[in-house]
Amino acid sequence: MTSPRSRATLQVRPEVMDFSPYSAGLSIQEIKERYGLDTVVKLASNENPLGTSPLVQQVIRSHADHVFRYAQSGNPRLAQKIAAFFGLQTECVVTGNGSDEVIDLLIRAKARPGIDNIVAFNPCFSMYTVLARLCGVELRQTPLNDDFSFNWDALVSLTDDNTAIVFVTTPDNPSGYTPPVEEIMALAKRLPEQCLLVVDEAYMDFTGNRDAHSMMPRLADFPNVCVLRTFSKSFGLAGLRLGFGAMQPELAGYLKRIRPPFSVNILAEHAGMAAMDDTVFFNETLRVTAEGRDYLNRELAALGCTVYPSKANFIMFEAPIDGAELHEQLLRRGIILRPLNKGYGLPRHMRVTVGNAHENKVFINAFKEILNVR
Amino acid sequence: MTSPRSRATLQVRPEVMDFSPYSAGLSIQEIKERYGLDTVVKLASNENPLGTSPLVQQVIRSHADHVFRYAQSGNPRLAQKIAAFFGLQTECVVTGNGSDEVIDLLIRAKARPGIDNIVAFNPCFSMYTVLARLCGVELRQTPLNDDFSFNWDALVSLTDDNTAIVFVTTPDNPSGYTPPVEEIMALAKRLPEQCLLVVDEAYMDFTGNRDAHSMMPRLADFPNVCVLRTFSKSFGLAGLRLGFGAMQPELAGYLKRIRPPFSVNILAEHAGMAAMDDTVFFNETLRVTAEGRDYLNRELAALGCTVYPSKANFIMFEAPIDGAELHEQLLRRGIILRPLNKGYGLPRHMRVTVGNAHENKVFINAFKEILNVR
Repeated sequence: MTSPRSRATLQVRPEVMDFSPYSAGLSIQEIKERYGLDTVVKLASNENPLGTSPLVQQVIRSHADHVFRYAQSGNPRLAQKIAAFFGLQTECVVTGNGSDEVIDLLIRAKARPGIDNIVAFNPCFSMYTVLARLCGVELRQTPLNDDFSFNWDALVSLTDDNTAIVFVTTPDNPSGYTPPVEEIMALAKRLPEQCLLVVDEAYMDFTGNRDAHSMMPRLADFPNVCVLRTFSKSFGLAGLRLGFGAMQPELAGYLKRIRPPFSVNILAEHAGMAAMDDTVFFNETLRVTAEGRDYLNRELAALGCTVYPSKANFIMFEAPIDGAELHEQLLRRGIILRPLNKGYGLPRHMRVTVGNAHENKVFINAFKEILNVR
Repeated sequence: MTSPRSRATLQVRPEVMDFSPYSAGLSIQEIKERYGLDTVVKLASNENPLGTSPLVQQVIRSHADHVFRYAQSGNPRLAQKIAAFFGLQTECVVTGNGSDEVIDLLIRAKARPGIDNIVAFNPCFSMYTVLARLCGVELRQTPLNDDFSFNWDALVSLTDDNTAIVFVTTPDNPSGYTPPVEEIMALAKRLPEQCLLVVDEAYMDFTGNRDAHSMMPRLADFPNVCVLRTFSKSFGLAGLRLGFGAMQPELAGYLKRIRPPFSVNILAEHAGMAAMDDTVFFNETLRVTAEGRDYLNRELAALGCTVYPSKANFIMFEAPIDGAELHEQLLRRGIILRPLNKGYGLPRHMRVTVGNAHENKVFINAFKEILNVR
């Protein structure tokens, strides 16, 4: 029984009532228990195939006694190091508790609730959808092409004088599609003048060719572009939450004004700096990923899958059997992939993270067993 | 020179332009360099006087290799442990990247931009002000009494049918004032029925008497109350960012729907659980703080300061000399306090964090030196 008072207190904004109820995914431990497994190979979240950099581990251990202190507000040392590493001015860098936070700051800084709109492809990264709705800002979407490439004309046609932001993810998730950077530059030139183009390059390092794909080295020529990067993937810091946006200093200044003073934790700050120092680990990550991606491409094609060309650390494929069934069969064998039936309406499509050589082989062998291929 | 395109791109919401420009405070290292100091005693941010719990340090070190994994979305294990520790149902607990994030989620869940309002005392915790403005929600404030106690009638008189949230901090910051819990209960009963009362109990553990002051054990009887707690103070995890809200399960459910899936980092999750296990460290923190608070109360009064009675791990006092001058003189001696001239307009008031016995003594000795007291 809920009293009238408590019912009234529970009033929330109408936008909030539309959100899907929360459900926590199973932990690796819970999957082990449910399926009676000793080991689990997780290829579901595009984490680093080599784990955590040894230098990062060392730095975390040596700063473990220091977590009772707040980090310096705004993480200026980290921002400086990011700028040096990526060839930016320090004033262009806005760090966040994952790039999720930077996305939120960008929408909140630019988009007027009930007035402005945001434009993206469909499907897109869920945070664009969720945060636009939470901010009370209209989200306009146009479908990807059938081959998961980008229909720029359709995207531009959704923009108008109230478009605050256009979001583009490259390499795209879950397809791995990565347009030539010339197309992004052309898009930037076609957008209405008040509109910011946010290019989410979470997986850019894995392309191995930033000249061909990244807007980062071109930011100075495109004041209407913001590039997002994360330390969750190539730097192996998913659990620590660290991302950043690179943008015009004036816009960066506004984001710094509105962000909470201590959103990036002190170990993420130290670990992020160490991750940039550990070039051996970083380069090995890229090498192992490229090698594993080639292996999975070959093996998945040989198993009769339609494999989408990916420049990221994951591969989308259409299986010759139902995706939900494949997902379940893999889970029983201790392998976690991301099925794309739910959020994407693709019943036979799956996304597999490129793991290390052992993990990739375990997955392919299990897949063969499921398909009865010898 | 900024081109017309870049100027238009830099358009931000009018609310955002009103925010104060960002400035990072000096780091301890920078203070050492500026004043030529070997050691610095930081009594400015209400951090733990004992540093980091040994058990927390051990847990961080043992999980350093695991930061390449995302934490389980929503930190269910941590929420369960918090619930057990604080005597709550798990469904009532919403974890956040510091309680800052929970404050943001509460405002975003409940308050309609341009329609609803939020009510608090003046001065209040800066996040209430900043986030209300960012959310486009009116903030109504009534001054504290001259002795920094609470004028409940004035607070209630600001509420109306569009008041989404009333914020109260107890113990209050920077004064340390802590009303009897009966007054909070009376307030909860007087508020309009749609209005949520958010009681920020960041410093409650230091009162040593939750029965007399905390709404936490009384939540079941007050469906219109949410209690905020942080792991930054008594648990010593300021740098790791961990806080939570305890509230009605239905409201908690809405907050979980809208929060980003991975806002609490994986080491905060493990460290938070370890901090609750380390009851020796926790109890010693409370003992050292109570002892140090008594010492500072006595010594400050003896130096001619007006000392405000505090139940928190900090003390506000009015110095017999100008606060900015005192602040500077202390800095030169390597001691950092929080002057209250700027945000609070109190030229002679300072806030000192209760440190460990050594730190407190270093501060008092330096203060004596500055005042030429022998």
